[in-house]
Amino acid sequence: MKLIFAIVSSDDSSVVSTALTKEGFSVTKLATTGGFLMSGNTTFIIGTEDEKVDQVIDIVAQHSKKRTQMVPSSTSYGVGLYSSFPIEVTVGGATIFVTDVERFEKV
Amino acid sequence: MKLIFAIVSSDDSSVVSTALTKEGFSVTKLATTGGFLMSGNTTFIIGTEDEKVDQVIDIVAQHSKKRTQMVPSSTSYGVGLYSSFPIEVTVGGATIFVTDVERFEKV
Amino acid sequence: MKLIFAIVSSDDSSVVSTALTKEGFSVTKLATTGGFLMSGNTTFIIGTEDEKVDQVIDIVAQHSKKRTQMVPSSTSYGVGLYSSFPIEVTVGGATIFVTDVERFEKV
Ligand code: NI
Ligand code: NI
Ligand code: NI
Repeated sequence: MKLIFAIVSSDDSSVVSTALTKEGFSVTKLATTGGFLMSGNTTFIIGTEDEKVDQVIDIVAQHSKKRTQMVPSSTSYGVGLYSSFPIEVTVGGATIFVTDVERFEKV
Repeated sequence: MKLIFAIVSSDDSSVVSTALTKEGFSVTKLATTGGFLMSGNTTFIIGTEDEKVDQVIDIVAQHSKKRTQMVPSSTSYGVGLYSSFPIEVTVGGATIFVTDVERFEKV
Repeated sequence: MKLIFAIVSSDDSSVVSTALTKEGFSVTKLATTGGFLMSGNTTFIIGTEDEKVDQVIDIVAQHSKKRTQMVPSSTSYGVGLYSSFPIEVTVGGATIFVTDVERFEKV
């Protein structure tokens, strides 16, 4: 048995959670407080058998991989005068820690 | 030293927490965000000596075991016409993971 | 790789978080719900290489050590009649658990 801690971008949080649940994994989602440095993250705890760790990591990775995205941006040239254009930003990404479980009980 | 992660139904959360604290255990309660799939759970982190793990599991189990409960329900037979009757639902339940602590510091 | 769980007094939470981040550590801050018994705590999860565990513990300890503080207090002698004086209280303190990480992935 393993306990997996996955810290994912809040943008990908519900997609990751849905994908894991659909595959039958038990997912607990912890609230992450919005400090300025760590805002925008969600921490998941997933308990699973040793042989399914790869599958969990694959699912998390597939749904939260770092990628670039075009988002609207704008520059102001003065009062009421601005130009809007798309810029490329990096979104997503996940950090995953797998720890060993010595004992597991369901009551 | 062990670190125990106990995920219990929110219904049982304060009873479990009170019971553990009364027995002298240090309990940290993490907020679980209310996603539709995992609403209603509370995660506890409990650090304890190896020989007290059984006691922690017993306390959590005793106060959060899966059980059935009769709750009021109602069926509507038309506008303003309904029948109220009790139905049996399953409540409670806990999932407990015990992990090993390599180093423990209190400052 | 280690995963460190540090439970610190909420008073010291932002100072600890800033100090760890300044030294390049990845810190995830979990919201702790305010039960009467465990209000006032913040839980951090810090993933780090084995050889930096000491540094993490030092930083947490330095910024959250138990210490005494003088705070204003007052005793009432009747309606509208009271005396204000400082009393010494203990603040801060942290509990730190280091657990082993079997596998670490960044995606
Ligand atoms: Ni998918
Ligand atoms: Ni009891
Ligand atoms: Ni400092």
